[in-house]
Amino acid sequence: MEVAQILCMNKGGGETSYTQNSSLQQKIISDTMPITEKAVEAIISTDATSASPPQSIAIADLGCSSGRNALLLISDTINLVYAKCKRLGYPLPEVSVFLNDLFNNDFNSIFGSLPDFHRRLKDTNGDEVGRCFISGMPGSFYGRLFPKHSLNFVHSSSSLHWLSKVPEGLEGEDKIRMNKGKLYVSRTSPPSVLLAYAAQFRNDFSRFISSRSEEMVSGGRMVLSFMGRKSMDPTASGTAHQWELLAEALTTLVSRGLVDAEKLESFNAPYYSPCMEEVRMEIEKEGSFDIDHFEEFDVEWDDLAEGTNSGLKSLSRGQRVAKTIRAVVETMLESHFGFGGEIMDELFERYGAIVEDYLLQNTVTNTNLVISFVKK
Amino acid sequence: MEVAQILCMNKGGGETSYTQNSSLQQKIISDTMPITEKAVEAIISTDATSASPPQSIAIADLGCSSGRNALLLISDTINLVYAKCKRLGYPLPEVSVFLNDLFNNDFNSIFGSLPDFHRRLKDTNGDEVGRCFISGMPGSFYGRLFPKHSLNFVHSSSSLHWLSKVPEGLEGEDKIRMNKGKLYVSRTSPPSVLLAYAAQFRNDFSRFISSRSEEMVSGGRMVLSFMGRKSMDPTASGTAHQWELLAEALTTLVSRGLVDAEKLESFNAPYYSPCMEEVRMEIEKEGSFDIDHFEEFDVEWDDLAEGTNSGLKSLSRGQRVAKTIRAVVETMLESHFGFGGEIMDELFERYGAIVEDYLLQNTVTNTNLVISFVKK
Repeated sequence: MEVAQILCMNKGGGETSYTQNSSLQQKIISDTMPITEKAVEAIISTDATSASPPQSIAIADLGCSSGRNALLLISDTINLVYAKCKRLGYPLPEVSVFLNDLFNNDFNSIFGSLPDFHRRLKDTNGDEVGRCFISGMPGSFYGRLFPKHSLNFVHSSSSLHWLSKVPEGLEGEDKIRMNKGKLYVSRTSPPSVLLAYAAQFRNDFSRFISSRSEEMVSGGRMVLSFMGRKSMDPTASGTAHQWELLAEALTTLVSRGLVDAEKLESFNAPYYSPCMEEVRMEIEKEGSFDIDHFEEFDVEWDDLAEGTNSGLKSLSRGQRVAKTIRAVVETMLESHFGFGGEIMDELFERYGAIVEDYLLQNTVTNTNLVISFVKK
Repeated sequence: MEVAQILCMNKGGGETSYTQNSSLQQKIISDTMPITEKAVEAIISTDATSASPPQSIAIADLGCSSGRNALLLISDTINLVYAKCKRLGYPLPEVSVFLNDLFNNDFNSIFGSLPDFHRRLKDTNGDEVGRCFISGMPGSFYGRLFPKHSLNFVHSSSSLHWLSKVPEGLEGEDKIRMNKGKLYVSRTSPPSVLLAYAAQFRNDFSRFISSRSEEMVSGGRMVLSFMGRKSMDPTASGTAHQWELLAEALTTLVSRGLVDAEKLESFNAPYYSPCMEEVRMEIEKEGSFDIDHFEEFDVEWDDLAEGTNSGLKSLSRGQRVAKTIRAVVETMLESHFGFGGEIMDELFERYGAIVEDYLLQNTVTNTNLVISFVKK
């Protein structure tokens, strides 16, 4: 399964689209904004110590997706750059922005919204808007994307919990499936499954860090946020409920003959939510970044950002979660299981009901990690 | 009429798509390749005199469109860079490529073909492939697109004959239309129409040149090719046949009640094919480029590139020209005239027949200009 081919947020602007159902991811960008703000301000100030205001600044947002969130971070970041420069009495730098996501991301829709984006930028900053060049850089961030020493600020939100591929080694000798009926590391998974997932994370995350290390200038900053876990044990209660409950929903569809049992046995999500220690270890091993700030924070599973449309607000909590998850994993499920349409609708109806029940008995939060780095 | 909104080659891969009908534009890229080759080699050699092989090279293709042609120039250019560096015994530089077109261009389809593109690059160059970062930069090239001093090589083919907007001043006092029944400067157009078009060209082309001047490094090279004319007189025979004959086809549809007469009166193409003198004057006025090479060359109107699909080859010459022109102007006509579907089919059937007749009596070539520049 080529993750680059099948990991793709739901396109368009319809009811099940990512655009309409990415309020949770928007909230995470907002929640981490104070940390982003500090990092962006530091970029300007770093240059101040060398007594030369920066003439140009290059920013990359990795895993930008499409829809509302794609330009949200960029918009805030550019406004921060302008505000800081004005406070310091600096001329405004030229800002280059690279929006990155996989090759199949809907860049057309982002580019189509850029004329409006530039108008809003002018509305916010008056006539004092510097030049701002926004481009799309398609490709996997688990490898080099940009020339050496070319980036001042790197950001990524709600993306790094996706692995570059499903871990190898989830099939034993004679092709025996090690993780039957589960979609991710689970309490009933054999230890080899956990080890395979953890190894894939280490491999991917270290490639991410070393690629950025080559691409960033010394003194450059990076802010990453993604799903993680509090416990060292990835099967600890409440760490992978989204996959546990999705497996449950799929199992009921298998028992009704709507989904092929073999397909369920062979599906494993290209996902991993690490704990802080695992992340820290890879950063320290690579060695070219200092960690400026590292924290866990929780987001209610059915939380919504400010200004979310009333349609989403009026749903039950279970339905809301089901829509959020569907917008992210539908393409992947469709590609693996080969169904869509009514069966997909039924799956997420069932999933919504299961989540609703679960939320009545449990307080469910998603743990996210946010890290702010300085390139040495 | 916002040209940025309505100038867009026909999308997709169907019978009337630009992908299927851009063989003529492909041929122009091939015909000018020796000039491109010389410019690209000079970039590497320029750095050789400073005794330091280039570590990175940034290339922009302006007006890249989508479909086959979008990556054709880039592919050839990267292969040239590698070949030259290998000949000189240089390590391969990192190559950054910026593909530019208007905001509504189909970048998704280009990005979707990049994994294949990278595979082909490896097939051609063996394991010795340097890093190559390909991004999309949407926006009008009649303004700044890139940071200062960031580009080594700029290329644009079959794009600069499109103006940024329909010239102002084509309506006289009391909104009297000056260019009724014509789509472009014609023998029957009043002098004010010619002056308005020429002024718009000068304005646009000088903005193009001064923008690139800021973006390119000293010693950087630029190769531009676009439609031009041999005569100083833009109404000289054979300089604007495509628009003359399209006006004729539209007029027959007006007489049959299929097209609104008022719409035909108010349509003027955002197009201009300059003569060498007009181009040279703007370059010299701006002053930051030396002209290394400047020539006119002719392309048969129904010419095809090597390897063109047999479907296109089997058509009559008139039909072939009609398909080539339709793939380029359909979106624009649809937006102005408000028709599509059967009327559009009928228009281009009629156009094909008119062109066929015309080609029986005339040898028709399109004049193109190609200029190679060095940034001082």
